[in-house]
Amino acid sequence: MSILVVGSVAFDSVETPFGKADEVLGGSATYFSTAASFFTDVDLVAVVGEDFPAEHVAFLRARNINLAGLQTAPGATFRWKGRYEYDLNEAHTLDTRLNVFETFRPRLPQGYEQSSFVFLANIDPELQLEVLRQVHGPKLVACDTMNFWIEGKLEALKKTLAHVDLLIINDAETRQLAAEPNLVKAARIIREMGPRTLVVKRGEYGVVMFRDESIFAAPAYPLEAVFDPTGAGDTFAGGFMGYLAATEDLSEANLRQAIVFGSVMASFTVEQFSLNRLRTLDLEEIRSRFRRFKQLTHFEDLSEESPAHVFAR
Amino acid sequence: MSILVVGSVAFDSVETPFGKADEVLGGSATYFSTAASFFTDVDLVAVVGEDFPAEHVAFLRARNINLAGLQTAPGATFRWKGRYEYDLNEAHTLDTRLNVFETFRPRLPQGYEQSSFVFLANIDPELQLEVLRQVHGPKLVACDTMNFWIEGKLEALKKTLAHVDLLIINDAETRQLAAEPNLVKAARIIREMGPRTLVVKRGEYGVVMFRDESIFAAPAYPLEAVFDPTGAGDTFAGGFMGYLAATEDLSEANLRQAIVFGSVMASFTVEQFSLNRLRTLDLEEIRSRFRRFKQLTHFEDLSEESPAHVFAR
Repeated sequence: MSILVVGSVAFDSVETPFGKADEVLGGSATYFSTAASFFTDVDLVAVVGEDFPAEHVAFLRARNINLAGLQTAPGATFRWKGRYEYDLNEAHTLDTRLNVFETFRPRLPQGYEQSSFVFLANIDPELQLEVLRQVHGPKLVACDTMNFWIEGKLEALKKTLAHVDLLIINDAETRQLAAEPNLVKAARIIREMGPRTLVVKRGEYGVVMFRDESIFAAPAYPLEAVFDPTGAGDTFAGGFMGYLAATEDLSEANLRQAIVFGSVMASFTVEQFSLNRLRTLDLEEIRSRFRRFKQLTHFEDLSEESPAHVFAR
Repeated sequence: MSILVVGSVAFDSVETPFGKADEVLGGSATYFSTAASFFTDVDLVAVVGEDFPAEHVAFLRARNINLAGLQTAPGATFRWKGRYEYDLNEAHTLDTRLNVFETFRPRLPQGYEQSSFVFLANIDPELQLEVLRQVHGPKLVACDTMNFWIEGKLEALKKTLAHVDLLIINDAETRQLAAEPNLVKAARIIREMGPRTLVVKRGEYGVVMFRDESIFAAPAYPLEAVFDPTGAGDTFAGGFMGYLAATEDLSEANLRQAIVFGSVMASFTVEQFSLNRLRTLDLEEIRSRFRRFKQLTHFEDLSEESPAHVFAR
């Protein structure tokens, strides 16, 4: 099953303690699509300016990403400039130029309204809702958002969330959206806004998924070389949704595996600037890191007998 | 097998967003001993002042903690006063009065020099080494430390670490001790100082254990009511070491189970002020939460066939 993603395609300029990259390929929809493309077909809806080079289009096309929904508008492509200190969990934005993204109105090409799996990357919640109005009876709608919309467009965001099955946000956004510092309580409050499932991204600490009465916690993969965390969250979402769409299985067990695939994909992205690591990534590396994730987290459950004798009293 | 612990017994005064507690029982050795006492016998070495009430002694004794090494010195018991904001990961110290702890010199009662399992709570590394000099051929020596000693007594600390098998510290201390921001690299640097195993405590994000070529990550148990994080780290260490001493099994698989038992014990401690939650805790609650930890982290590994068909290319 293919996935529809609506979000940004951008040029990023990034400085980290380990180096810098200027005007490299970025954007939420770009990271999402590329990660998801390892698992399934992706229909991308976004806008770029007239300065967007053919080589980037060729890269996306080579990953079998359907570009019928990639509009080219007069003007320049969205640009983001940011810096990370040693605490790679926090991005410091130096400059944002929305350019053609400022007037972006997502239009779905014909056929896209039948999409079963939809990901609304972090854009204006009113646009997110506009997209959903164009889609008929999707199986799974997931979305992302950020502090900017929680502060500035809370009512619109809540309207959108009422139509969303799965929300993927970070822990600060979770606490802010729920106005509740405790994560478990915050998750309950947010799930009452609409999404049956809440996936909380915690950067180097991994991910927690809240769904019905169940909680699933997965660590991030411990890496020696985290070069650039830009795009980690959207790559996670792409791997997660890509696996779900490929398997068409929304059971708890499969959602948990999808979380791990998402984490695996994100762990590769941060190893290099931009999407560079994903350009060379192959299936065997993904499978191998999934297995190392299993080793990273596995412990034996209690057998019925064992615990009794270890308790002193 | 019993455990020897050397550390502090104290009165804590704590404020959190959820309430406050004045002059309640605290101290690293107290939390450690109480948690470990659910699994095995504990020999406690510490000092209190003449103001230490009989009811606290009775509590420790009722938990079968051997108090032959609990000295009473002229003066007042160690007092700590602190506050937590909504970010419960960070304690703000308001006042520290070492009192009798300032001149504490650990003396092991006869028989303790044969201890097989030793935990050196966070005290002056010179005193930690003095304790180790009194113990003959222990099976496992674990220790804790803090930024104060890393900054002020680094050389003494390194001398101690050369005799330590297992270091249990938090992530900021890990980065500081190694002078390296990347956790994986920092762990390697610290393990070259002596400890074969490094256990990094990350508060609400859980624990990571580095040992030989293996890494194990366990989340913290997600709680709706975190009342007071004081003592969580020492409770973790007590549950961890208590389980190891009870099973006398230092295999990787058993260390991983021990990490989970430590996390389970810590998750109870933070539910109430002081050691109050441990006072009413029973074995069945511990076993039940261990099993919920398993549910919290479990996902299916890849079968040999399954992944192939989910990859688009």
